[in-house]
Amino acid sequence: MKPIQVGLLGLGTVGSGTIAVLRRNREEISRRAGRDIVVKAASARDISRERAVSLEGIELVADPADIVSRPDIDIVVELIGGETAARELVLRAIDNGKHVVTANKALLAKHGTEIFARAHAKGVMVAFEGSVAGGIPIIKAIREGLSANRIEWIAGIINGTCNFILSEMRDKGLPFDMVLAEAQRLGYAEADPAFDVEGIDAAHKLTILAAIAFGIPMQFDKVYTEGITKLTAVDLKYAEGLGYRIKLLGITRRAKKGIELRVHPTLIPSRRLIANVEGVMNAVLVKGDAVGPTLYYGRGAGAEATASAVVADLVDVTRMATADPEQRVPHLAFQPDRLSDDPILPMEEVETGCYLRLRALDRPGVLADVTRICADLSISIDAIFQKEAGEGEDQVDVVILTHVTPEKQVNAAIRRIEALPTIPAPVVRIRLEELL
Amino acid sequence: MKPIQVGLLGLGTVGSGTIAVLRRNREEISRRAGRDIVVKAASARDISRERAVSLEGIELVADPADIVSRPDIDIVVELIGGETAARELVLRAIDNGKHVVTANKALLAKHGTEIFARAHAKGVMVAFEGSVAGGIPIIKAIREGLSANRIEWIAGIINGTCNFILSEMRDKGLPFDMVLAEAQRLGYAEADPAFDVEGIDAAHKLTILAAIAFGIPMQFDKVYTEGITKLTAVDLKYAEGLGYRIKLLGITRRAKKGIELRVHPTLIPSRRLIANVEGVMNAVLVKGDAVGPTLYYGRGAGAEATASAVVADLVDVTRMATADPEQRVPHLAFQPDRLSDDPILPMEEVETGCYLRLRALDRPGVLADVTRICADLSISIDAIFQKEAGEGEDQVDVVILTHVTPEKQVNAAIRRIEALPTIPAPVVRIRLEELL
Repeated sequence: MKPIQVGLLGLGTVGSGTIAVLRRNREEISRRAGRDIVVKAASARDISRERAVSLEGIELVADPADIVSRPDIDIVVELIGGETAARELVLRAIDNGKHVVTANKALLAKHGTEIFARAHAKGVMVAFEGSVAGGIPIIKAIREGLSANRIEWIAGIINGTCNFILSEMRDKGLPFDMVLAEAQRLGYAEADPAFDVEGIDAAHKLTILAAIAFGIPMQFDKVYTEGITKLTAVDLKYAEGLGYRIKLLGITRRAKKGIELRVHPTLIPSRRLIANVEGVMNAVLVKGDAVGPTLYYGRGAGAEATASAVVADLVDVTRMATADPEQRVPHLAFQPDRLSDDPILPMEEVETGCYLRLRALDRPGVLADVTRICADLSISIDAIFQKEAGEGEDQVDVVILTHVTPEKQVNAAIRRIEALPTIPAPVVRIRLEELL
Repeated sequence: MKPIQVGLLGLGTVGSGTIAVLRRNREEISRRAGRDIVVKAASARDISRERAVSLEGIELVADPADIVSRPDIDIVVELIGGETAARELVLRAIDNGKHVVTANKALLAKHGTEIFARAHAKGVMVAFEGSVAGGIPIIKAIREGLSANRIEWIAGIINGTCNFILSEMRDKGLPFDMVLAEAQRLGYAEADPAFDVEGIDAAHKLTILAAIAFGIPMQFDKVYTEGITKLTAVDLKYAEGLGYRIKLLGITRRAKKGIELRVHPTLIPSRRLIANVEGVMNAVLVKGDAVGPTLYYGRGAGAEATASAVVADLVDVTRMATADPEQRVPHLAFQPDRLSDDPILPMEEVETGCYLRLRALDRPGVLADVTRICADLSISIDAIFQKEAGEGEDQVDVVILTHVTPEKQVNAAIRRIEALPTIPAPVVRIRLEELL
């Protein structure tokens, strides 16, 4: 059978990894797919640059637009990143009847609805396993493996940079800034780390996970997003003492009134498997009504881990190309005419437990004031402790764990607590999830 | 679109669970699959029995042979278990042009080759996600999600009964027999537990995992199988002290001279995620050359967890039914004409680390004798400790951890150690895997 011919847009880390994997495992992949999958042409900004991988047999072009219109290309792999040019090229490839494979989460989280509609109209596939959690086949697990289930919630460690930083802060008791610098030195964080540490990357991925879990359109603009830049080693230590770990989680949950969609640092009981995912590794916990909790763990980034997902998509597209387009796995797991319009809940209506840390003047009556405020707002306290003031210190840390409470009430409590004359600093609030 | 019509063989736990899930999530499943999936007919030995699930609208028959020949059935779901009748019925369903979904691991491990060949000839699908690790979509992950990879090894906790027993023995320091009785009371172990605790069930599942990982035929008769019946709470405690947990693992690995295929109790470093999988939960660790290590965790048994896999297979078969048969996902992940004839390694040629526990008379020179034997056989010792004899005791426990060593040498060492006059009891050997 004639090989499937691939056109690659972008020869960066993942592009080079894709070529390397396709070449090294060519025999094995062909035994699986029933035909060869070969990269016919690739585009790169600088086609004369030396690369880690041999480009022998691959036609190099400077203009990616050449690739999407070539008649000899069956599948276009978009790995240039960004949104504007990528959107343009992907739409053009679809218009030309090409199947598309992409690992571009920002593109899908923002323009997925448009792209999938166009692909549906043209009867081509758009596969995007590499866009979430790198090499972990999480899209496939949710969209196909758990298709019997009503998904109840998903909670994921889906940004390796943040998880590495939090692991190191906990292990070594170091402050955020110092660990971030180390992560940058190791190549785990970008020179401009905002995208990762502010939770935006995780929010892109969570948008995609929520869409395929619940059959809702991509709604990136509705994700509540809070990063890890304000976390301190002392909070990690207190959490540890209470039997919790702090992780940056992307959480989406089907609540009574709508769908929760949120990225924020979260306390998780230490005995949960996902609390023990360390370093740059990713893990996604999915709760289905029939299967119960399931967890998927692996490398969330890196040349070959992401290439593993890209190439798996190539094999899938190759296999599904002969199926009736109406019968293929739908982009968002559910048939496009049967998406749901469940609203995304505003953060104020979300309910979670909370860890609250107050810096308080060491005066009698502070605890009484604080617990009174909580009681007035119907916030039930699970645990409270005050760290004894050190020699010569006039301030103490008070830590409170609350039961599950609507965010709105906790916000009100924080405002009132911060207004107390005995509380000189802002209250630190970190949400808590039992994940059961 | 016309509903897909399913015929169910067997109305036991999983059969009832399948009906319950299809009914409860009917709307959601239909939104995913693009058409309804309905159980049209079911067979059961005693059709008059009361069941936990309503059978309204399902035609009940006593003879399963009626189901496999009905022209109105598109997919036959085999859930009667066992090998003889199940094989007969599955083959007959295939001959009649029906697609088949089964969760019967014994059937596939022993007769898979025959069944898949017949299905291939007839152009029908045989799906079996429920046969390994219950609701965890592990077949899909390996066969499709990791299709870019050369799989290096798989290690899995794939028998919930054994994992529950080992978790309880460790937690409570209780002996095997007592915990087994508890497991039977809780319904986690059968009245005749041999199938689970002797490792046979795990060996069936491992056979299937190895086949789809490496593209080899099912070779159940070549699995080295050792159960958990001889494990003692003292070994679990010593292992714990050395930083390890003991789990019953199914392991298959691509070694230089062939493929390892073995089920046995295994020491794993406690910090590994899979070492912290407790109770009846299952987990499978898969190492691919591109993706690195990935782990899949969830419920390995139970009515709805297994039904989750069975129904996912129904959705898959529904979606793939329109694809060119040659292009569908191959049963064993690789095209049937391109399976590999890599030999399965005899256990003597497998290399692992080992935990050895010797009961020794409390005499000078015992350690010298034992370490000499190890040195003579080129067995490198990683750690050795002797538990001090208690008051009035004449015997001590000596525990040795070895580096990775061929099984043949360890066997020889054990024979020589047991021949020492100072060693009054058989040596306990538990294999050790770093899983990195």
